[in-house]
Amino acid sequence: MNWDSLFAARTQQMKRSTVREILKLTARPEVISFAGGLPAPELFPIERIKQATDTVLSERGREVLQYSTSEGMPELRELIANRLSAGSFKIHPDNILITSGSQQAVDMIARIFLDEGDRVIVENPTYVGMMTSWRPFQLEFSAVPTDANGMIVDALEPLLADNPKLMYAIPTFQNPQGTTLSLERRLKLAALLAKYHLPLVEDDPYGELRYSGDPVPSVLQLDAEYRGATTLDGSVMYCGTFSKVLTPGLRIGWVAAALPVIDKLVQVKQATDLHTSTFNQFVSYEVARDESFLNEHIIQLRNVYRERRDLMLATMEAHFPEEITWTHPEGGLFLMVTMPEPLNAREVLKQALAHDVAFVPCDDFFIGDAGHNTFRLNFSNARPERIVEGIKRLGVVLKEAVAQPS
Amino acid sequence: MNWDSLFAARTQQMKRSTVREILKLTARPEVISFAGGLPAPELFPIERIKQATDTVLSERGREVLQYSTSEGMPELRELIANRLSAGSFKIHPDNILITSGSQQAVDMIARIFLDEGDRVIVENPTYVGMMTSWRPFQLEFSAVPTDANGMIVDALEPLLADNPKLMYAIPTFQNPQGTTLSLERRLKLAALLAKYHLPLVEDDPYGELRYSGDPVPSVLQLDAEYRGATTLDGSVMYCGTFSKVLTPGLRIGWVAAALPVIDKLVQVKQATDLHTSTFNQFVSYEVARDESFLNEHIIQLRNVYRERRDLMLATMEAHFPEEITWTHPEGGLFLMVTMPEPLNAREVLKQALAHDVAFVPCDDFFIGDAGHNTFRLNFSNARPERIVEGIKRLGVVLKEAVAQPS
Repeated sequence: MNWDSLFAARTQQMKRSTVREILKLTARPEVISFAGGLPAPELFPIERIKQATDTVLSERGREVLQYSTSEGMPELRELIANRLSAGSFKIHPDNILITSGSQQAVDMIARIFLDEGDRVIVENPTYVGMMTSWRPFQLEFSAVPTDANGMIVDALEPLLADNPKLMYAIPTFQNPQGTTLSLERRLKLAALLAKYHLPLVEDDPYGELRYSGDPVPSVLQLDAEYRGATTLDGSVMYCGTFSKVLTPGLRIGWVAAALPVIDKLVQVKQATDLHTSTFNQFVSYEVARDESFLNEHIIQLRNVYRERRDLMLATMEAHFPEEITWTHPEGGLFLMVTMPEPLNAREVLKQALAHDVAFVPCDDFFIGDAGHNTFRLNFSNARPERIVEGIKRLGVVLKEAVAQPS
Repeated sequence: MNWDSLFAARTQQMKRSTVREILKLTARPEVISFAGGLPAPELFPIERIKQATDTVLSERGREVLQYSTSEGMPELRELIANRLSAGSFKIHPDNILITSGSQQAVDMIARIFLDEGDRVIVENPTYVGMMTSWRPFQLEFSAVPTDANGMIVDALEPLLADNPKLMYAIPTFQNPQGTTLSLERRLKLAALLAKYHLPLVEDDPYGELRYSGDPVPSVLQLDAEYRGATTLDGSVMYCGTFSKVLTPGLRIGWVAAALPVIDKLVQVKQATDLHTSTFNQFVSYEVARDESFLNEHIIQLRNVYRERRDLMLATMEAHFPEEITWTHPEGGLFLMVTMPEPLNAREVLKQALAHDVAFVPCDDFFIGDAGHNTFRLNFSNARPERIVEGIKRLGVVLKEAVAQPS
């Protein structure tokens, strides 16, 4: 079989993820990996989940193991709608679709909006997993530059003249930078969305994981407030997940959007995989409906991850050469490191792997030929002693690299 | 927001599923519904699944709740590969990708193969859920006529001159007809596949549920045997699932295919939803690795479903007017009823619902303007007394319809 001649044209735009390939290289236990985006498994509420599985199987076993609706479990949709509602801005359960992780929400949005050649606005750098999903549509990407306060919204308005179909952003604790769009910029963005009726995918997997600084409302909420809307009828499609606050292995995410969007997404959801696992929706609901537990669990995550972030930053400060700079996230899982030109993160990674430490080069996160001198570090997954040891090893590698740029 | 103007052109090809809409009408408990494709929930191995969840959470909790690889759990892939291997035809675990139900496998295959306007060969009628997924690619469907022995393979070869990209079929206990492709025709089909290098999606959700007649090998296996192949390197992509033999609520399916196909599908899987629920893969593996339990459970399903099929057929024989005909499946979940022209199943359904009994009209399963006088009955879900009562009610409706065609 000559399979290559049979694959669709769009598959030429697909490639294996760099992150994925690096994760394979870091499978050796002696490697200290800051490459993945993994939560700390020692914090998973395993006992709670075991109780929840026992409860739902004992009480509603025939229902939780059966097929269910494409929209998702009504009680879970209601719980999420309530958690996202704020003040007079009330989200209805009908505005929620349950997905198999928020990646699926991002992927399905592409399927209902994107025609070949469409223009899409993204932060630069942006989330590589979105590009993996969207790139096969052969898009034109317009890149908004970013700084320590997230995307530079003043640079956005000129791009709106190019008739973009969608905008995608992670405003809070961005992947890969860890930076957060400031309140001032969010308000400007809300005004632009309303003026141009631009659909925005607000991807927010990390929003609940804030370790310092003041919380800022979601763009979803600010857009509604700017328009004086009390229901979800605007242009923001908000993607969330339990992966970072409960566990990723259950694959429970969601999208909150205006009803016409949910209506189309439900049709795609049905075509894609009929519905998200009934069982996992019930288990997640059973755990999350105890909101005092959930909120306390999130506080515990924040405390542990804050300590790890602070330890990583302090160790970098002590051991990285002065030519190296990095972001200072107020939350999330990642920070981004910038090396002086012409250092190349993929070359430095080879040296790092020789020292049994790993990271993800960020060039794949950038639009255009940029970011070769940047890489991403995850601080949530490794234990404190591994963070210190790994950053020290990386400091040695970086000092060598800075001294002898290849 | 004028959402309709923003949706992609392909969304014009999407529509809400008839089955889905009918299931909403049948939610009243007094309705006896033969409309869905649901397994019997009273046969779900709830205690086994509870034991399995406890075991995997106790022993490997941190692993089963974490992110995992896009290909799927290695042990589960091995188990499935072994179950599909036959004689000297050995399937390697690398030939298996775990999906969120077999619907996702069917959907992802479309994403890697189909360009707009491609020609696809299907049985007529064919599975409506495949069309829901594939229709947005704006395909040309070539329909192979069927009879009591499945698709008429002699009518297939002329269609191969039209340069089809893919063929899709449910050779065993087809949905909606319940019919099975005979061994003789399978052998002819295998020869055609080898001659024309035509990729075939062999969708086999029901294959293990045989109640009478002799088992026939999968086309996957016969294709390998025809070519003298001992590994999976041919043009058949085989989609399977635990939904019908364990439970649908865990959403565990798979595709077995040649390595270049799996390689592309893994890339799509990652873009789509990263991976199938780690937890559900572990739980399914923990249950299924006790193969004596699994095989006995399947025997129990066969015994119960055989009784229901026989009861439905006998009651139809006694209560349906003589102008009505139907298929006589040797397995699976469905049979298909044909009424004399010009009776229309959607009109008859209205009468049926007035008598609190439901089915699925099959016109959406047909290519072209056909099948208006046909409908599908499910015999796995309802208990025996409900089957008798429901078929009697349907007999009354059909007698009225035949007496007074509208």
